[in-house]
Amino acid sequence: MKRILIIGIGAGDPDHLTLQAVKAIGRADAFLLVDKGAVKHDLADLRRDMIEAHGRQPYRVVEARDPERDRTTPAYASAVETWRSRRADLYEAFVRDELGDGETGAILVWGDPGLYDSTLAGIEEVIERGTVTFDHEVVPGITSVSALTARHRTNLNRVGRPVHVTTGRRLAQDGPTADDVVVMLDAHCAFADLGELGEEFHIYWGAYLGTPDEILVSGPVPEVAERIRALRAQARDSKGWIMDTYLLRRLPLT
Amino acid sequence: MKRILIIGIGAGDPDHLTLQAVKAIGRADAFLLVDKGAVKHDLADLRRDMIEAHGRQPYRVVEARDPERDRTTPAYASAVETWRSRRADLYEAFVRDELGDGETGAILVWGDPGLYDSTLAGIEEVIERGTVTFDHEVVPGITSVSALTARHRTNLNRVGRPVHVTTGRRLAQDGPTADDVVVMLDAHCAFADLGELGEEFHIYWGAYLGTPDEILVSGPVPEVAERIRALRAQARDSKGWIMDTYLLRRLPLT
Repeated sequence: MKRILIIGIGAGDPDHLTLQAVKAIGRADAFLLVDKGAVKHDLADLRRDMIEAHGRQPYRVVEARDPERDRTTPAYASAVETWRSRRADLYEAFVRDELGDGETGAILVWGDPGLYDSTLAGIEEVIERGTVTFDHEVVPGITSVSALTARHRTNLNRVGRPVHVTTGRRLAQDGPTADDVVVMLDAHCAFADLGELGEEFHIYWGAYLGTPDEILVSGPVPEVAERIRALRAQARDSKGWIMDTYLLRRLPLT
Repeated sequence: MKRILIIGIGAGDPDHLTLQAVKAIGRADAFLLVDKGAVKHDLADLRRDMIEAHGRQPYRVVEARDPERDRTTPAYASAVETWRSRRADLYEAFVRDELGDGETGAILVWGDPGLYDSTLAGIEEVIERGTVTFDHEVVPGITSVSALTARHRTNLNRVGRPVHVTTGRRLAQDGPTADDVVVMLDAHCAFADLGELGEEFHIYWGAYLGTPDEILVSGPVPEVAERIRALRAQARDSKGWIMDTYLLRRLPLT
């Protein structure tokens, strides 16, 4: 039986790797590295460093180019699905062509494979196709959410109260749906466009969490929103990419 | 300056420790181990094992008894606050009496210190009191939520959609507030009392995640609710304690 390990590698700090992830990397005969193009080379490099540090020789690294995703269409979910099918093609080819019988392949995933990541869904699509047979395991990782709250030294939730995790698109549509809302994948700084509602919230924002480029800002939304927007645009321009997330907390903070 | 490290140790598997947590344990001169009484000895033992495996000699282990919490009062938040103040007393005494100048103390926290854990709030209370001076750092950990979804090999969220994280009490009061709801701290199996609404949901449940005693059950709520309730009661009786969590996902699953 072939085996695929989907390994969460944490939010950016190489030391976010768990001992379980280190051991999983050591078990792999081959790694699939999907390259997102020039702008994300830093990210690929960090994965390569982890493989070099913890991989057990001899291992193979298979590189593939991430399919382009149509980011212009308003049909977000269906554009993601199309892109995911093409991703599934990569996984299928990796299992079929790159792994021998009884071999183990690994895919390294930012953060945690369960949280706003498409790898598992792609793997499930391959299983549904039924064209290749393999088993798979998931190794949990430090989420960008845990990295964010740790760096701000704050709790995600308040005592006995709920937390909502949502996307920038949803926040723009629905506003904050709880007193504590984590927002992922927000390319448009939806927090800055909450209008009067923004006055009720504190924001804990972080980019490149756990890396030497980390940026942290927190404060009342009206006071810091424009600063975050400017820092974000500047960092994105200079590095070519950005990964950020934030927690909106309704005032008062306690 | 004295320093306190609040270290997330993951959901139960010793290999959930991150390299960052391993290094943090190695930096500590003293560890505060809060004992929750006989029923939680297993948990204290696992922390002790981690300290033995990764602590750097010489280090000291300071044991303290967890204050009793009034679980009978309906005033949940205020009972938690009273309990937390007494916890803060323990942290204050640890910093004042057990750490010398320039020394580092560590507190090992299940899962992630940001998610439904009171340590950070207790530390903040000590800071507000102003009776002792110290710096503190937070090391993120694998959440029980990530451990749950990894073991079930499923995503927490669906593409572009939100996830709510809430408590058993809240679920009992408000029902599922989203198509994907994670429930923590549910001693009363609120998922089994959703009535007709339960028919719309699939549940991914897990207890003692990442440990040799791990139990996983998933399925449509009406089909598995009673089985989970029975397994949970039986496991809790035989071990004396239980830690479990679950994800409710509105059907269809894709």
